[in-house]
Amino acid sequence: MPEGRALKGGGAPPVRRENVASEPGDAGRGELQILEEHVHWENEAARLLLAKVRLPGKAGETKEQFRVTPGATHEDGVVVVPIDERDRIVLVRQFRHPVRMWMRELPRGARERGETPEDGARRELKEELGLELVESWTLGRIATDSGQQRGIPFLLVARVRRGGETDPDDSESIDASFAYSFSELARACASGEILDSFTIAAVTRLLPHFDGERFEYKPGVVR
Amino acid sequence: MPEGRALKGGGAPPVRRENVASEPGDAGRGELQILEEHVHWENEAARLLLAKVRLPGKAGETKEQFRVTPGATHEDGVVVVPIDERDRIVLVRQFRHPVRMWMRELPRGARERGETPEDGARRELKEELGLELVESWTLGRIATDSGQQRGIPFLLVARVRRGGETDPDDSESIDASFAYSFSELARACASGEILDSFTIAAVTRLLPHFDGERFEYKPGVVR
Repeated sequence: MPEGRALKGGGAPPVRRENVASEPGDAGRGELQILEEHVHWENEAARLLLAKVRLPGKAGETKEQFRVTPGATHEDGVVVVPIDERDRIVLVRQFRHPVRMWMRELPRGARERGETPEDGARRELKEELGLELVESWTLGRIATDSGQQRGIPFLLVARVRRGGETDPDDSESIDASFAYSFSELARACASGEILDSFTIAAVTRLLPHFDGERFEYKPGVVR
Repeated sequence: MPEGRALKGGGAPPVRRENVASEPGDAGRGELQILEEHVHWENEAARLLLAKVRLPGKAGETKEQFRVTPGATHEDGVVVVPIDERDRIVLVRQFRHPVRMWMRELPRGARERGETPEDGARRELKEELGLELVESWTLGRIATDSGQQRGIPFLLVARVRRGGETDPDDSESIDASFAYSFSELARACASGEILDSFTIAAVTRLLPHFDGERFEYKPGVVR
């Protein structure tokens, strides 16, 4: 068990006070109280929301905060770890407009409202790699940047097999795929060669499910 | 070495074609060509930029893409892994407006223009935890979400010691800290109890620098 200490107010912190959505936030409990919020900009994929918040310990003062959420027809995205028949992990290389770089990363994408995470993973594998999803398991969820984004994408690991041609989304620029052994991927992530946070975080989530280079999903690890 | 294959055009992909900023992007090379871009919204911390891009393989067609960047006076942020005198890793618990949850996470923050990553880490440790930075080392950088954000924060690991009271930023809601052994942190991240992508990714970056529960930075791992 990690050791905890309160930073204000004294006394030991309660054991759990996180990962529970708290709507709308209460400045009296040390949270940012959200007074009002509106959509400032949106396209099909995303929305920018602006909120007026009251700061904890400052009864009168308000401040503007922003957050980016999925668009009106979309839900939290899905990231998939494709495991091939030789227990290797398949990454794609993709040109990303926001960083203007070619990135090696796990296949991922938005999810349309109503689509299950597994169906989203199946679609992304087909579109981006021409791979067929055989079986999938949960690796939990990941909050990409809780300081700016509302989304908490689903992370899945999937057994895959070759299944025909790729069918890329028109707006994607994917040019190659790479198959890593688990130790090769862990090294490339530890060295900073791989920058993508989803891919780096997936190595941590995969640790209990690899015995050396051999993948076997262990039920009960993800709570 | 990972095995690579081209997804279009045939032939093996070049060994390296990533992590190099490509300005402005060229649709003829399979990239999204950026035709024009403007600031649509900004506050002191962030900007929303809208761009008109040309899609690869579609000479005439253009599409709007967005990205979130640091504000005019800010640079890519810093995330710090505080290692205490017992080789434990210290997390804070913070209420995050975008997800409206209490999150356990590594101390992190924005960096003002001209502030070094180490100075930013020193400031964040003092403000959020009342800890003094003794020595720090690089763990590379992390692209939080290259599909939406331009930023690629710096990840540092730092030896720390107690150094007086906390001095929280007015807009932060941090109520407690928790000290984890490395294996405790790896388990909490693998189970999905910890959601923050920076913290989960840091475990992968720390793997070569822990021998069991004992921390010792290994030069040469990060390239």
